[in-house]
Amino acid sequence: MGNVVIGQSGGPTAVINASLAGAIRCAMDKGIKKIFGMHHGIDGFIKHDLIDMDEYLVDVNDLSLLKRTPAAFLGSCRYKLPKIEGNEDLYESMFEYMDEMDIEYFLYNGGNDSMDTILKLSEYAERTGRNQKFVGIPKTIDNDLAITDHTPGYGSAAKFIGTCVKEMICDNESFAGKDPRIVIVEIMGRNAGWLTAASALARDTDCTGPDLIYLPEVNFNIEDFLARMDKLIKTKKSIVVCVSEGIHLADGTLVCELANENALVDAFGHKHLSGCGYSLFRLVADNFGINPRVVDLSLLQRCATHLASRTDVEEAYSAGYIACETAISGESAKMITLRVPRRVPYNCFYEATNIADIANIEKKMPRSWITKDGTNVTEDFIKYVSPLVIGTLPPYYVGGLPRHMTLRNKRKEIY
Amino acid sequence: MGNVVIGQSGGPTAVINASLAGAIRCAMDKGIKKIFGMHHGIDGFIKHDLIDMDEYLVDVNDLSLLKRTPAAFLGSCRYKLPKIEGNEDLYESMFEYMDEMDIEYFLYNGGNDSMDTILKLSEYAERTGRNQKFVGIPKTIDNDLAITDHTPGYGSAAKFIGTCVKEMICDNESFAGKDPRIVIVEIMGRNAGWLTAASALARDTDCTGPDLIYLPEVNFNIEDFLARMDKLIKTKKSIVVCVSEGIHLADGTLVCELANENALVDAFGHKHLSGCGYSLFRLVADNFGINPRVVDLSLLQRCATHLASRTDVEEAYSAGYIACETAISGESAKMITLRVPRRVPYNCFYEATNIADIANIEKKMPRSWITKDGTNVTEDFIKYVSPLVIGTLPPYYVGGLPRHMTLRNKRKEIY
Repeated sequence: MGNVVIGQSGGPTAVINASLAGAIRCAMDKGIKKIFGMHHGIDGFIKHDLIDMDEYLVDVNDLSLLKRTPAAFLGSCRYKLPKIEGNEDLYESMFEYMDEMDIEYFLYNGGNDSMDTILKLSEYAERTGRNQKFVGIPKTIDNDLAITDHTPGYGSAAKFIGTCVKEMICDNESFAGKDPRIVIVEIMGRNAGWLTAASALARDTDCTGPDLIYLPEVNFNIEDFLARMDKLIKTKKSIVVCVSEGIHLADGTLVCELANENALVDAFGHKHLSGCGYSLFRLVADNFGINPRVVDLSLLQRCATHLASRTDVEEAYSAGYIACETAISGESAKMITLRVPRRVPYNCFYEATNIADIANIEKKMPRSWITKDGTNVTEDFIKYVSPLVIGTLPPYYVGGLPRHMTLRNKRKEIY
Repeated sequence: MGNVVIGQSGGPTAVINASLAGAIRCAMDKGIKKIFGMHHGIDGFIKHDLIDMDEYLVDVNDLSLLKRTPAAFLGSCRYKLPKIEGNEDLYESMFEYMDEMDIEYFLYNGGNDSMDTILKLSEYAERTGRNQKFVGIPKTIDNDLAITDHTPGYGSAAKFIGTCVKEMICDNESFAGKDPRIVIVEIMGRNAGWLTAASALARDTDCTGPDLIYLPEVNFNIEDFLARMDKLIKTKKSIVVCVSEGIHLADGTLVCELANENALVDAFGHKHLSGCGYSLFRLVADNFGINPRVVDLSLLQRCATHLASRTDVEEAYSAGYIACETAISGESAKMITLRVPRRVPYNCFYEATNIADIANIEKKMPRSWITKDGTNVTEDFIKYVSPLVIGTLPPYYVGGLPRHMTLRNKRKEIY
């Protein structure tokens, strides 16, 4: 048995390091000699920039801290490998480096763009008769990977979004004595509305939940929005609207482009769009004489490990473990997918699926999980998402703040 | 013994309801017959809009849920009583209503503006020989009340800010492989920098902490900022800058006004400033050709009860309890202040201080707790803030999301 190398790619999640911990634990269990991390994904691998995990892990207990650490411990990248044809030199040099480091198992943790790396490397290995095995571990808060029931990272982001929206509704209602108070919450999601849909989790006996939810899967209609706001303003004192950053009109115009005249010009002379939240601010201010508050959940929705879903952490860990096991068992060109045969009581199974069926494919919210009028989600979606947000895995608190495991903490320097 | 009335005022905090729970618990312990809540503070009281707490609390266990509920359960307001002279009718009618409802103890939970309510009502009572007692309970995330060592609400906001900044630094470092990545975090605080200063809690063996911290107590110097950024960009790949919303130049110009040409015109025809974060975006983009990411912690910093500091929750509860006890013991025109004779090990005592020494006074960060160059905080500040963020009081999770106690949950309708 050769060594294992693992990389993290694309936007981090609250649980991406749990997958890393799972893969490492499996490699330890199977007696793998060396576990390497790619420093900043495939980009670092190409530059021969590897991290020797021995320098950070002295025993398996360290994995518990890694599981509770946000963002990509190894460093991430957004580099996509060029096509094989015409770039054989690059591929050849990568495989030579694998041989040099005695790397037999190559694991890559990322979204649909990152799975393209597994696809290309495994194709090249097959063509050239290499024996290395390539397995992908799913990861994205966007939940837009094909075949898998859901992706590790989504459950924690959904829990954070649902919780924060619920807390902000409480806050907004506190003041709702006189004029209506309007909060517009902008949530990540360019093409798929999974994250914004999770704001509906706030709805329960103690909370109305968001009044309107707009997803990119449905065209945004300005007149319809204004008519609904008009009705809400006349009947409610606290109004909360949740919107995906990528909502657009029927002609494809992004809503964030509507307030374009106010856009900042950025460092490259491009208009820097201030987000669809500000376009809705504009519409509400101009039509109703009320200034809404715009809240952008921004980076927090993908790195708030302090509120990770335990279900999500454990599934991320399991996906990492099983990916490593799958590679060691001799399979290649696979990604681990999650299958949920039943949601109540909840059961989740892990399968190895052909990478070609997953890479570069984007899964959107089914239209049937969005209400007909396009301003809310259905009970079926709530049934889908609910088990994914169950449980917490509290951080290890030191001095009141979560302790993390970072590249700053080389064990040799501590012990 | 007459009845108790309690009101919540000003911007909510993560623990304002813990003070409400403490006051209610004391009233129960002392055998008070009726506990009324003001629906939206003094504004609701004037309108005779009271909430009978019997309708929400069946036993003391409900107080545990109330302690874990963000924002103002009773509803808040920003109404300031007019001066007594010339408004005797208003004051007389308020006292008549107290007589009518047999209210003897009047508790008000708020910041320095709200303490003005306690000051004026107790003055009027003294002038007119009324026997009602008026006691204030401190509350504000801004930590800007005089005399008290700190204010309930601040510790939880500090814990949330420190934690989120630490998580975002992790996230930003994940990508720091190529060009420098810059995040600008905008934090509440118009005149006092206590909240932004708490971002320094992120600094530890596992995290560099913010690279620059700008508070309103020190004039912001554009040239100095650019020189520091230039140095950071040349030496670091991940740069995080934390700024108070109220930072200003030496001539008093708010930094948020600098990017004014891009301001949205709001519902009242005023320029709607997009925040000092965007002014710094502008400066960095224009001078270095890099687009920073601007993150505004917005409402979350005052309502993220899911990450409340246990120390803060218990102190808020105690302050509420002792305020009620103080009023019942016959004292009036007081606010409960916290005294911390020693920070290691931490001890906190509660005292009743004359309201006239507190109302309408704003306490800023001591200049000596800010580094000489004005871009960081000192160890003395860290020693001050550290004990305030210790411990957690996890929410009651139902279906993966925090359960709250809201006005929607009348007990008669549940049981």
